[in-house]
Amino acid sequence: MAKNKYAVGVDLGGTNIKIGLVEANGKISKKISVDSCASEGPERVLSQIKSGINLITENCKGKIIGIGIGAPGAVKLKKGTVENPPNFPGWNKVHVGNILKKEFKCDVYVENDANAAAIGELTYGSGRKYKSFVMVTLGTGVGSGIIFNKEIFRGDAGIAGEIGHVSIDYKGPQCRCGNYGCLEAYLGNSYLVERVKRDLNGNKESMITGLVRGDYNLLTPKIIHAAAVNNDPFAVSVVKDCGNLLGSLLASVVHVLDITTFIIGGGLAGFGDLLFEATENSARERVMKPFKERIKILPAKLKNDAGIKGASALVFYKS
Amino acid sequence: MAKNKYAVGVDLGGTNIKIGLVEANGKISKKISVDSCASEGPERVLSQIKSGINLITENCKGKIIGIGIGAPGAVKLKKGTVENPPNFPGWNKVHVGNILKKEFKCDVYVENDANAAAIGELTYGSGRKYKSFVMVTLGTGVGSGIIFNKEIFRGDAGIAGEIGHVSIDYKGPQCRCGNYGCLEAYLGNSYLVERVKRDLNGNKESMITGLVRGDYNLLTPKIIHAAAVNNDPFAVSVVKDCGNLLGSLLASVVHVLDITTFIIGGGLAGFGDLLFEATENSARERVMKPFKERIKILPAKLKNDAGIKGASALVFYKS
Repeated sequence: MAKNKYAVGVDLGGTNIKIGLVEANGKISKKISVDSCASEGPERVLSQIKSGINLITENCKGKIIGIGIGAPGAVKLKKGTVENPPNFPGWNKVHVGNILKKEFKCDVYVENDANAAAIGELTYGSGRKYKSFVMVTLGTGVGSGIIFNKEIFRGDAGIAGEIGHVSIDYKGPQCRCGNYGCLEAYLGNSYLVERVKRDLNGNKESMITGLVRGDYNLLTPKIIHAAAVNNDPFAVSVVKDCGNLLGSLLASVVHVLDITTFIIGGGLAGFGDLLFEATENSARERVMKPFKERIKILPAKLKNDAGIKGASALVFYKS
Repeated sequence: MAKNKYAVGVDLGGTNIKIGLVEANGKISKKISVDSCASEGPERVLSQIKSGINLITENCKGKIIGIGIGAPGAVKLKKGTVENPPNFPGWNKVHVGNILKKEFKCDVYVENDANAAAIGELTYGSGRKYKSFVMVTLGTGVGSGIIFNKEIFRGDAGIAGEIGHVSIDYKGPQCRCGNYGCLEAYLGNSYLVERVKRDLNGNKESMITGLVRGDYNLLTPKIIHAAAVNNDPFAVSVVKDCGNLLGSLLASVVHVLDITTFIIGGGLAGFGDLLFEATENSARERVMKPFKERIKILPAKLKNDAGIKGASALVFYKS
């Protein structure tokens, strides 16, 4: 009997490193989460990754065909170098790929986490049927990975797809990145929560006030969603507005790339149909005629453990 | 002695068809312009192209290695099909490439005119030293051709690079295309002229009023430029404003594509250094840190006959 093939998927985050043993169909057969120890420097982070991989591969009865790593920050493919990942102090350039290759004597693929998420959807998820799409993650930040003709479109230095920092209003609110009117300055979790707080403090009526018992510091996108699901008019308008803004941005992305399928994941994707419909309507209304019929806005399929699955998909995608 | 190699470049426009015999270094050795006769339908346009090519290749002492055509509208490469070009009534899909190949028994390359302009700059112009850039044409419309790794980036259906219809303000003025706040709705020639007229009618002081002898219907971008060159404060502010808006758009394009070199051509590029400096400052200020040092905004090198040269470059680029 042929041995099962497994990939190790490593989701490198600023707080935790999530590691999973993943089958070729995307099923996670075993997973762990270890502390990143990011504040103790890159050596320590690497040793956490190594011991995590050792733990997860112990007693594995199948064949491990490679390790995939989704990392924040810029990634250079050649040596699997991760450069200046945010929230990893003292980390300049570390050849994570080469180091792990030497340690584990197998193929190691390192990718930017947004690209890994896109490869995850391409391999196991909503992107399987499409040759080109943009995987948009709506979380603390807004990021994306671009798949063109079944390959990652990386741009010149490997950092294409920063669509959270496409401006939808050149006179808009300033974003942490310095630019004005970036989509992230509207839909990034903290920006959205702040905006809703301002509206509520400005005496907008909403059941949200009851849900947080009057303490707006407890406000989260989940609570906005809960109120919207209960047909709270203010919460519904917030979700629809998010869709309108996202759709207007996606229309611009369509005009640049001539790619018309978008897969949406991350926390705000939890807003569900209300968000997806508003997004699709807005994008379709705004794109030029030849694109209108082609627009597709789909929810991401990999939800929990998307990071581990995306990282493991790097292995299956290459082999 | 080896025969010189020539390409025929055909610039298909709604009013005129410009045809040139072009050497491998981009030098035009002979050129003509014939009426497009677009209103008489595609058969007539094709016969105009054919007789123009016959005229230009008559008595040619070198070897003609191919014909390149820059056409408006969407182009399908396979049969050199030109689809629904604006300003060509009754034209649905015409296999221009295949028809001319049969007629002239040589290689024929058909491209969208914005892509042909980009290939022109890549082959003979400001793009020779760059592996990736976006060629932006600021004319009646605002279009672009994307070069990535020395190749045209076409997107899924061959119509990538519609950056004139990237919105810089989702609540902005409506564009002819239906979307709101498209760059073209600010910088397209007629939009720009209308905006300046409105300001002048609103009693803005400017030497422009004297230059058009009080008749704002005579206003053109060239007149705005003439006033700006003479340090007219209003005209200078108009040009700088164009640069600011263009720069804010280019920053967004950088964030999507991770391509940081832009070559600017078309009428408004005549605004010169004042425009280029404002564009570069605005783009550099707005892009994220890893892109800042890489931003380059260059004037197009092919000015007159850019259409013919770009079309001929399709031949040399492929062979």
